[in-house]
Amino acid sequence: MCRWLAYAGRPIFIDTLLFQPCNSLIHQSLSAQRGHVPTNGDGFGLGWYAERPRPGLYRDTMPAWNDINLRSLADQIRSPLFFAHVRASTGTATARVNCHPFRFERWLFMHNGKIGGWRTVRRDLEQLIAPELYAFREGATDSEVFFYLLLTNGAQADAAHAFRESVRQVEAVMAAHGVEEPFRMTAALTDGERLVAARHSSDGASPSLFYATGGDISVDQGSCRFEASRGSVLVLSEPLDGIDAVWREVPEDRLLFASGGEVELVPFGQPADAPVRAATKVS
Amino acid sequence: MCRWLAYAGRPIFIDTLLFQPCNSLIHQSLSAQRGHVPTNGDGFGLGWYAERPRPGLYRDTMPAWNDINLRSLADQIRSPLFFAHVRASTGTATARVNCHPFRFERWLFMHNGKIGGWRTVRRDLEQLIAPELYAFREGATDSEVFFYLLLTNGAQADAAHAFRESVRQVEAVMAAHGVEEPFRMTAALTDGERLVAARHSSDGASPSLFYATGGDISVDQGSCRFEASRGSVLVLSEPLDGIDAVWREVPEDRLLFASGGEVELVPFGQPADAPVRAATKVS
Amino acid sequence: MCRWLAYAGRPIFIDTLLFQPCNSLIHQSLSAQRGHVPTNGDGFGLGWYAERPRPGLYRDTMPAWNDINLRSLADQIRSPLFFAHVRASTGTATARVNCHPFRFERWLFMHNGKIGGWRTVRRDLEQLIAPELYAFREGATDSEVFFYLLLTNGAQADAAHAFRESVRQVEAVMAAHGVEEPFRMTAALTDGERLVAARHSSDGASPSLFYATGGDISVDQGSCRFEASRGSVLVLSEPLDGIDAVWREVPEDRLLFASGGEVELVPFGQPADAPVRAATKVS
Amino acid sequence: MCRWLAYAGRPIFIDTLLFQPCNSLIHQSLSAQRGHVPTNGDGFGLGWYAERPRPGLYRDTMPAWNDINLRSLADQIRSPLFFAHVRASTGTATARVNCHPFRFERWLFMHNGKIGGWRTVRRDLEQLIAPELYAFREGATDSEVFFYLLLTNGAQADAAHAFRESVRQVEAVMAAHGVEEPFRMTAALTDGERLVAARHSSDGASPSLFYATGGDISVDQGSCRFEASRGSVLVLSEPLDGIDAVWREVPEDRLLFASGGEVELVPFGQPADAPVRAATKVS
Repeated sequence: MCRWLAYAGRPIFIDTLLFQPCNSLIHQSLSAQRGHVPTNGDGFGLGWYAERPRPGLYRDTMPAWNDINLRSLADQIRSPLFFAHVRASTGTATARVNCHPFRFERWLFMHNGKIGGWRTVRRDLEQLIAPELYAFREGATDSEVFFYLLLTNGAQADAAHAFRESVRQVEAVMAAHGVEEPFRMTAALTDGERLVAARHSSDGASPSLFYATGGDISVDQGSCRFEASRGSVLVLSEPLDGIDAVWREVPEDRLLFASGGEVELVPFGQPADAPVRAATKVS
Repeated sequence: MCRWLAYAGRPIFIDTLLFQPCNSLIHQSLSAQRGHVPTNGDGFGLGWYAERPRPGLYRDTMPAWNDINLRSLADQIRSPLFFAHVRASTGTATARVNCHPFRFERWLFMHNGKIGGWRTVRRDLEQLIAPELYAFREGATDSEVFFYLLLTNGAQADAAHAFRESVRQVEAVMAAHGVEEPFRMTAALTDGERLVAARHSSDGASPSLFYATGGDISVDQGSCRFEASRGSVLVLSEPLDGIDAVWREVPEDRLLFASGGEVELVPFGQPADAPVRAATKVS
Repeated sequence: MCRWLAYAGRPIFIDTLLFQPCNSLIHQSLSAQRGHVPTNGDGFGLGWYAERPRPGLYRDTMPAWNDINLRSLADQIRSPLFFAHVRASTGTATARVNCHPFRFERWLFMHNGKIGGWRTVRRDLEQLIAPELYAFREGATDSEVFFYLLLTNGAQADAAHAFRESVRQVEAVMAAHGVEEPFRMTAALTDGERLVAARHSSDGASPSLFYATGGDISVDQGSCRFEASRGSVLVLSEPLDGIDAVWREVPEDRLLFASGGEVELVPFGQPADAPVRAATKVS
Repeated sequence: MCRWLAYAGRPIFIDTLLFQPCNSLIHQSLSAQRGHVPTNGDGFGLGWYAERPRPGLYRDTMPAWNDINLRSLADQIRSPLFFAHVRASTGTATARVNCHPFRFERWLFMHNGKIGGWRTVRRDLEQLIAPELYAFREGATDSEVFFYLLLTNGAQADAAHAFRESVRQVEAVMAAHGVEEPFRMTAALTDGERLVAARHSSDGASPSLFYATGGDISVDQGSCRFEASRGSVLVLSEPLDGIDAVWREVPEDRLLFASGGEVELVPFGQPADAPVRAATKVS
């Protein structure tokens, strides 16, 4: 089980959410303090947008809590839209190329969960990747394949459709191979303008997903206030203990669209002719 | 708090104690399974003797549970005497040069614990290192300095004296600086023939230390039997759950000498004119 | 262009060929000394057989000349059959999973060269991997895919056939996509008993490959003698300057079978009904 | 021999000087292309100032040319003052803590060269570090010790004096131990406002050092123009081939002060009562 966090809103220093006292994504990576949380020590990643269309990407195989480089980057970089991920491997090797977020041109994607029977279905799923995208695949994870399925299925034009079609493909291949292990995911996708998240599973037991909408994050005496109604959105695996915000759980089987500090939730299974949400812009 | 393990006896594959089902040093490094154990993900090390007088040394900054190279080495290397260590940093950087065991020529040393007020006393303690040994220091840890104090204080001739004198020096420098934080350690030292361990603290609250004497380790259905009276010794931070052995706790303030599968415990504070134990050989 | 070395014969310490004065695989990795040799600093790997059927594998992304762990392993491990490889990436990421040798069960494989138009032909070639082997693929290199093609094409039963059929498949897919960039390789394959090497290219410009047969390697005053007619074989990308041996170049388009210290060269294009060489044993 | 580069002037993306076609610090790290340049593959570092007083620091032990994280950072970060360094070890371990630049609070320091007889003089030189700075030392290099000598000798108040006094101390300790190996350095020091560089050696054979003053760096068809008289300064080990600028060599035994795009050179041996230059500001 990994943990991830997506922020979109007013530019903030990344350490506001990653390292400051109010924060706990890095704390979440180091389980010792919290009996119920597994250690997420199998690599981490940070993807961020700043002044260029292509996002920056920093991934390494060390535990996030240990990497002094990450501390420095988080302390220096101010961004209006970033993804952070701490990884607990579900089987594939610990390697930079297997760390989230994954990047393709302007896109970032990250995932928590697992495609059931991955070793069985991997070959068929990789064949569904568009030939022109195929050679960009660098690692061996189910997550990276799902990202390329989203891109193959037209995420740029209609992210909702791409999520639905990709999930349909995964579940069809799993069924064809008689896989009984479930497919579970929370995921986030962005092209630097639009932020879409998904919570879905084949067995109704998706990993947790929360969000809060707010504004300027102000750090005060080891606690942060994420004030309501100011145009920023935080989507993440679990609430950050030190942040004073109104956390809302994303229900099972939903797509989440964040735009201008507002969040809209749409049933995952909504018919494909529903209004296209992909054009929604953040900020 | 780190965890370590020292084995001396009949040559065994290192994975017998590090990775096989019966084992848990690697499991100890990954805390998720055991609520009361902190994560030891800040590097690890393995030092072993085989066919050459100088021991092999393999250290890295990844968590031990994640390193496929370590798995391969432990699976391939058979050794009659080896040290393994998983690190939870007490403040210094995560770097190979700060990982245990430390090696100097034929010697290996590893440590769990902390010299109180390290940043205050470091300078004075480093000056106590013999000039001819000084330049071999590679990192910034209290543990490595303690190792060079042992070597400076004649560990080769009389390990008991070296431990006592080094502890006396550390505590004297701490006192001179008014340090109130305690000095606590369990440590193990070997030159490939003699194995000496120590449990000591300035406040009577040393980290735990256990040992077992036995023989051939036989792995059977996920459990190991470490049979009594066969000439091997295991000294470690905490009992390995999967090993069926008679574990004995090393009491506070003791030196442990392992020889020919036998263990002798000596009070740490024993007068310096007590019989020299350094000549005792393992095996 | 990578550099590799395969040794089969009497057990020797690996550093005899990797680090001792007589040696230069590690020197070959650090180009400074030799103007005409490119830097091979994009990772390295060592695969060796010792007491277990499955070989040990040690790969890392540091330059080989820099890794103190490698130095320790090479100094400690004695092996009758090992592969060593220093990598200069031809495009794919520097990651442990992309370093040679590759291992599957008892098998090791390493490669120097490049499949032309890799990004174009990758998808079709990966589909030729047997479904039951497909999920073992960890990285993104042409070399690893070629290894799985060898296994798919029956390397265990007939290594010569597997090499010929795999090359035929690669060149057919390249032709189908109109790739004009050549396919060039020297490669080595072993299951711990048989050692097969290949030198082939689609344009008659294969990377260099040499071998020597000899016996005990004796190190003397910074030079090594690899004495003739004693049952050991060395196959490598280029002669080791410091070793006094009779180096023979493997001609273009040959398969090399090493057995009992003898080497047999067979034309690559030899008809498939030629005698099966796969049963030949090393030692 | 390392290579380094310091830039002060109008904020530019770091990759303008590190990775773009016009550039060659990264190319300098990979010697293959240039026979006369040794490989600088033993780690690298980047220190930069942006919106916070404390600089960012990114160091790793991989070769710079291989690190996709570095590429991303250089592509994203815009800075008015940064140091970049590629390392060829002169003996100490390859570890992040031994990579340049070194950072202390607002300060950055980097060095190319070597203190002669380092293993002999290390102990005495470390004792000259102010007690309150001593515990910040993380690695084992002569360069890091020289940095802490500069801070001990009042670099904040008078950088020229600090350089002179530190060099005097180093040479006095070398003389006291009868070291005949020379002390050679080029070095750069900054607190985020002032940029001071030094070229000095005990034997008149200092490593090379160059500078150029200019303005906006414009990249055009694989070449850069560093236009004169616009307020920016570049100080570096050797001219960047692809940059069209007027390179000037810093003569032996000089201190260089960069301020507002201007460079002033002062004899290293200038009497201590000369005008203090430390107050000079960059920009």
